[in-house]
Amino acid sequence: MTQLHLNLFLHDTGHHEASWRLPESDPHAHLGIEYHERLARIAEAAKFDSVFLADSPVLWGQVGRRPSGKLEPTLLLAALARATSRIGLIATASTTYNDPFNLSRRFSSLDHISGGRAGWNVVTTAGDDAARNFGLDGQPAHFDRYERADEFLHVAKKLWDSWDDDAIVADKERGVHAEADRVHTVDHEGRYFRVRGPLNVPRSPQGHPVLVQAGSSEDGKGFAARHAEAVFTAQQTLAEAKAFYADIKDRARTAGRDPDHVKVLPGLVPVIGATEAEALAADAELDRLIVAEYARGQLAKLLRVDPESLELDRPLPADLPSEDEIEGAKSRYTLVVELARREELTVRELIGRLGGGRGHKTFAGTPEQVADTIEHWFREGAADGFNIMPAVLPSGLELFATEVVPILRQRGLFRTEYTGTTLRDHYGLPRPANPFSRSLAVV
Amino acid sequence: MTQLHLNLFLHDTGHHEASWRLPESDPHAHLGIEYHERLARIAEAAKFDSVFLADSPVLWGQVGRRPSGKLEPTLLLAALARATSRIGLIATASTTYNDPFNLSRRFSSLDHISGGRAGWNVVTTAGDDAARNFGLDGQPAHFDRYERADEFLHVAKKLWDSWDDDAIVADKERGVHAEADRVHTVDHEGRYFRVRGPLNVPRSPQGHPVLVQAGSSEDGKGFAARHAEAVFTAQQTLAEAKAFYADIKDRARTAGRDPDHVKVLPGLVPVIGATEAEALAADAELDRLIVAEYARGQLAKLLRVDPESLELDRPLPADLPSEDEIEGAKSRYTLVVELARREELTVRELIGRLGGGRGHKTFAGTPEQVADTIEHWFREGAADGFNIMPAVLPSGLELFATEVVPILRQRGLFRTEYTGTTLRDHYGLPRPANPFSRSLAVV
Ligand SMILES: Cc1cc2nc3c(=O)[nH]c(=O)nc-3n(C[C@H](O)[C@H](O)[C@H](O)COP(=O)(O)O)c2cc1C
Ligand SMILES: Cc1cc2nc3c(=O)[nH]c(=O)nc-3n(C[C@H](O)[C@H](O)[C@H](O)COP(=O)(O)O)c2cc1C
Repeated sequence: MTQLHLNLFLHDTGHHEASWRLPESDPHAHLGIEYHERLARIAEAAKFDSVFLADSPVLWGQVGRRPSGKLEPTLLLAALARATSRIGLIATASTTYNDPFNLSRRFSSLDHISGGRAGWNVVTTAGDDAARNFGLDGQPAHFDRYERADEFLHVAKKLWDSWDDDAIVADKERGVHAEADRVHTVDHEGRYFRVRGPLNVPRSPQGHPVLVQAGSSEDGKGFAARHAEAVFTAQQTLAEAKAFYADIKDRARTAGRDPDHVKVLPGLVPVIGATEAEALAADAELDRLIVAEYARGQLAKLLRVDPESLELDRPLPADLPSEDEIEGAKSRYTLVVELARREELTVRELIGRLGGGRGHKTFAGTPEQVADTIEHWFREGAADGFNIMPAVLPSGLELFATEVVPILRQRGLFRTEYTGTTLRDHYGLPRPANPFSRSLAVV
Repeated sequence: MTQLHLNLFLHDTGHHEASWRLPESDPHAHLGIEYHERLARIAEAAKFDSVFLADSPVLWGQVGRRPSGKLEPTLLLAALARATSRIGLIATASTTYNDPFNLSRRFSSLDHISGGRAGWNVVTTAGDDAARNFGLDGQPAHFDRYERADEFLHVAKKLWDSWDDDAIVADKERGVHAEADRVHTVDHEGRYFRVRGPLNVPRSPQGHPVLVQAGSSEDGKGFAARHAEAVFTAQQTLAEAKAFYADIKDRARTAGRDPDHVKVLPGLVPVIGATEAEALAADAELDRLIVAEYARGQLAKLLRVDPESLELDRPLPADLPSEDEIEGAKSRYTLVVELARREELTVRELIGRLGGGRGHKTFAGTPEQVADTIEHWFREGAADGFNIMPAVLPSGLELFATEVVPILRQRGLFRTEYTGTTLRDHYGLPRPANPFSRSLAVV
C-alpha cells in the first residue's frame, strides 16, 4: 500500500502565535542552532520525510507579538545537514527577490553538503514591505511575480544541468580534471534574466533539489503543475482539500507530467492531549495567551483594511475586496474570508482560529483522533501526506513522534525505516535526467 | 609581546594548481563536506585565528586544469561552524553581484550560527565572465564597483545595527517579545540601493561580522582604510610588503581609525621539507605537473592578451597595458607584470612562479626556515600575521601545524590557547557599538 509522507514545518517555539509565552518555551530558541538540531533529530528519529523552513526577506509582522527575525534558511539547513543523515531539508526562497545564478548555486551546494537531501520551497513573496528592502516602492503584480518565477525556474534548471553528471573525470595522468565539452553555457536571454552560465558547482546528487510550491491561487496552481514536485497548502475542510488535490493532479496530467510526481501536502496543526478534553484545554490556554491587538493588526494587514474597522466581537466587515483585487497572498486571503463567513465567526473567534496555524487546519484531540484525521484525509484522496505544524515546539513534535507516528505505523500508513538516502527517495520522486548528457543525445 | 595571527586559506587539494594530480590528493575533495571539516579541525587544533574561503559567482578558469566549481562559502561555513567551536570562519562574497539585504542577513545568520565567529571578505569581483551571469555584457568599471561596495557596506552596517542589542525582552507576562522602539528602519536611499529595513535577524554576537578586504589597488586600499578590519594581500618582496603595510596603517589613521584595528595579512605558500633540498624537490615536482597550456591561457586572460602572443621560453611581450587601463584585478595585474620584469622571467618561469599561489609569495624550506621568514616579515613591520596557503592540502597544513606552529610558539610569536570565543577576540578587534542604542543616545 502507498504510504503517506510527513514533513515537519519548523517554526521557533511552535506555530501557535502565543506558544512562546508558555512556561516551557525558550523565547530565544529561534536564534539557537542547537535547538533546531534537536528538532531535526527528533523528526529524523521518527522517520519524517523532511523538515521545512518558511521564509521571507523582510521583518514580518510586529516584533512584540512573537519571536521574529529568523536565521537565513539555506544556511540553517546547511548546519542541520551535519546534525542529521537521512531526513530531507527544505528551505524557502523567493524568486522575486533573488537572482537565479546565486540562488541556484546555493541550493546545489545544499544538495552536495547534505548528500542529496535538499528541497526548495519556491515562493513569489507577497507584500509591499519585502519589496521596499529591494529598491521597489511596492510589490510587483501577482501575475508578474509568477511570470518571473517561471523564467527563474527555467534558468535554474538549465544551470543545474549545465554540468553533465560525468563531467569530472579526474584524470591525473593526462592532467584533465573535468572534460570541457561536458560543461555547458546556458546562454539564457529572457524577459527577466540574462544568464551566461555554466553554474560554478557540478551537478548535485539529486540532479537538482526537490521543487516545492506553496501558493494556491490560480497562477500558483499553474506554476505548481509545471514545476512542483510537492505542494504545501492550507485547507480548512475535507471537501476543499479533495477538490484542491484533484485539481493539482489534473493540472499536472494536463502539463504532461505524472501526477504521482506532485505530492500534495496540506498543513495540519495538531494539539495533542491524553484525552480530548485535555487537548481542547491546551488549545484554549494557547488562545487565551493571544494578544488581540497584535492579531487584529495582522489580520487587518492581510485583509488590507484599517485595524479600527475590525471590531473584536462583530463579524468581518461586509465590503471586503474580492480576490481579484488582492496582489499579495491571494489564496490565503480567500481562505480567511471564507472561513469567517462559512462559520459566521466574530473577529475575535477568527483570530483564535488563525492563531494556531495562520489558516492551516488546527485539530485538537487524542493521538488516536489525530491519526484518524490523517488517515481519513489520506484515504479520501485529499492528501499524499501532511505538513505537520505543531502548535508548540518541541513538546508538540515529541508527542506527535511518540504517540501519533506509532499508530500510523500500526495501520501500515507510515514507514518504519528510511529505504533510501535522498529526499527524492523518501518522496518517491525520480532523479531528473540531464538533458545535455551525451548518452541521452544518442537515443 | 604582540603575537601574530594565522588564517588558513582553504583551497580544495591545495593552492598549487597541480596539487590535485599528486597521488595523495582526492580530486573530489572540493565537493566533500567531511574533507573541509577535517581541514578546519586541524587548523582549530593548531589554534589558527580563522579559516577562509575565496569565491567568485562564476565558473572560473578552465575546468580541465584543476578542481573547479565550488560549494557556496556561506553555506559551507555554516556547516563548518558545527564541526568546530572556536576558529573564525571567513567567507568571500561580492558586493557587485549581491544585494545588501539578503547578503547582510546571511552574514548575520552565520554569526549567530557560529556563536560570533563570522567574517566577510568583501570583494568587488573582477572580470566580464561574472558580469554575464547577472544580465550585464561586461564588468562595471573598477571605480564604480568600489563606489557600489562603499554604499553596500554603509547599508549593511545600518542593517546589522537595526536591532538594538537589547531589543528582545521576551516578556512572557506582558506578551511582548521585542520592544518595537528598539528595532529601527534604516530608510536608505543612495545611488545604488534603496533599502527600508529593518533586518529580519536580531543583532548578532559580534555586532557584525569581521570585515576583511582583499584588493590592493588605490581604490581597494581606500576602501580598506574605511571599512576593513583585516586585509589580505599578495606581496612578493619584503620591501613591497613593508611599504604596503605602512600605507594601509597610514590610510586607516587618516580615516580616523585605530591602525591596530586593521590587521594586514600577506599570503604565504609554504612548501615544507625535512631538509631544504626535500622542500625544493617537492616544489619542483609540483611545477613539473603544471599543464603549460592551461597556465598560459590563464595568464593571457589576466594580461588581456592573446595566449598565442605568450611564447613559453621568451619574456612577456613589451607592450602590455598599464594598470590604469585594467578594469579587472588591478593590483594582481601589476604584481605579475612587475615580478616577471624584475626577475627577468620567461613565460614558462613566470607560470611556475604563479602556479603555487597565483601571485602570493611561495617559500620552500625547512620548518625552521619557514618560521624564520614569518618572524622576519612580522618583526620588520610587513605583516600582523599571515594568510597561510598550503601548496598541498591536507598534508601541507598538517606539516605546518605540527612542525612550524610549535616553533612560532617557542619563539613567543603565536598563541598556545584561544583566549576568547569570537573571531573579534582572536584578532583583537573591538565589537562595534550599536549607534542606535539608547544608552549611547543619552551621552
Ligand atoms: C505551508 C505553506 C508555507 C508557506 N511558506 C511561505 C513562505 O515561507 N514564504 C512565502 O513568501 N510564502 C509562503 N507560503 C505561500 C504564501 O502563502 C503565498 O505567498 C501565498 O499563498 C501567495 O500565493 P498565492 O497568491 O498563489 O496564493 C506558504 C504557503 C503554505 C501553504
Ligand atoms: C588572499 C586574497 C584573496 C582574494 N580572494 C578573492 C576572492 O575570493 N574573490 C575575488 O573576487 N577577489 C579576491 N581577491 C581580490 C582580487 O585579487 C581582487 O579582485 C583584485 O585584487 C582586484 O582588486 P584591486 O583591483 O583592488 O586590486 C583576493 C585577493 C587576495 C589577496
